[in-house]
Amino acid sequence: MWLQTEIRLAPRSRGFHLITDEVLANIPQLSNVNVGIMNVFIKHTSASLTINEDADPTVRDDFESYFNRAVAENEPYYRHMDEGSDDMPAHIKSSLLGSSINIPVTDGQLNMGVWQGIYLCEHRNQGGSRSLVITVSGE
Amino acid sequence: MWLQTEIRLAPRSRGFHLITDEVLANIPQLSNVNVGIMNVFIKHTSASLTINEDADPTVRDDFESYFNRAVAENEPYYRHMDEGSDDMPAHIKSSLLGSSINIPVTDGQLNMGVWQGIYLCEHRNQGGSRSLVITVSGE
Amino acid sequence: MWLQTEIRLAPRSRGFHLITDEVLANIPQLSNVNVGIMNVFIKHTSASLTINEDADPTVRDDFESYFNRAVAENEPYYRHMDEGSDDMPAHIKSSLLGSSINIPVTDGQLNMGVWQGIYLCEHRNQGGSRSLVITVSGE
Repeated sequence: MWLQTEIRLAPRSRGFHLITDEVLANIPQLSNVNVGIMNVFIKHTSASLTINEDADPTVRDDFESYFNRAVAENEPYYRHMDEGSDDMPAHIKSSLLGSSINIPVTDGQLNMGVWQGIYLCEHRNQGGSRSLVITVSGE
Repeated sequence: MWLQTEIRLAPRSRGFHLITDEVLANIPQLSNVNVGIMNVFIKHTSASLTINEDADPTVRDDFESYFNRAVAENEPYYRHMDEGSDDMPAHIKSSLLGSSINIPVTDGQLNMGVWQGIYLCEHRNQGGSRSLVITVSGE
Repeated sequence: MWLQTEIRLAPRSRGFHLITDEVLANIPQLSNVNVGIMNVFIKHTSASLTINEDADPTVRDDFESYFNRAVAENEPYYRHMDEGSDDMPAHIKSSLLGSSINIPVTDGQLNMGVWQGIYLCEHRNQGGSRSLVITVSGE
């Protein structure tokens, strides 16, 4: 069984945002999959996806603080500067975190840990609406 | 063909540990898959999975040294501190390295390079037993 | 439907290189897949794969500059030094960026964003030819 849908997320501010519910609401047929894998892919190079702690919002705040320090803006050695000081760091953060996630599906549900959720990592100041492709294979 | 099993790993100390053999021992039906993909997913947000060099244990030591410096404890800007100084860095390391790996399967075996192995990346001081979901699809 | 092929890339210099066309040229049967996932896996621990901006080559230059600073050579705490000063950083970069990528397939084509391409991340000075396993599942 193959399911695939493409969605546009509501625009988010720069930072890390929980989107588990928004993803699942767009793939209700997941409930018919006994065993499988869900892949979520982001069609952008300045935003990314990851899985992390979904209970305490300060974790997401600390992610933003960490990545802004680990991948600084305006490094004197950057050559790709035409699209603003937040652009090149956004590309690097995107590859550090990754463009897609894979989550096992068991008995019609995502088989994640109780504290795990899907983060949209918005690395631009004005990233706008982001497109995701959700693909589920299973039986 | 879909195979899926959930396992609990023996507790490991903080650091990077080879678990290739422990994973494979739990999915013996892999030998029946001519072509496919194995996904291994960790159901935690303070430990992660990666693929790297499996021969020299000092590589794993250097990983631990590197990540402890790249993602330090007790950064003054961290707000998520309630679960100990090793917790927030563990979340960040987990997303830098990732919650799941995908490895091609060919002729009943993982089709990795000769030096590649699966690492459990234990980022907590007392992480305890970790749960993995192993999913194989193929034919 | 399962497709799988193993290819050897032409050797590249240390740095980040676009290989989308080289990958696609080796999996022409992709055009028969209506919906699916393509996994590309690198069988090495000192090179990696990622997806990022494919239009401006200075982005790739800045990636090389960034990762050389974020994962320096000759750190005094490295213990794994026998294979040259570029070896241990290559292992760490490889795990930061990852050994495989997954891209959705829709209507016989990769369903990426218009600016996305596949990067070979060559972290060694003399990495030589690198082997990839391309696996496509779909229907």
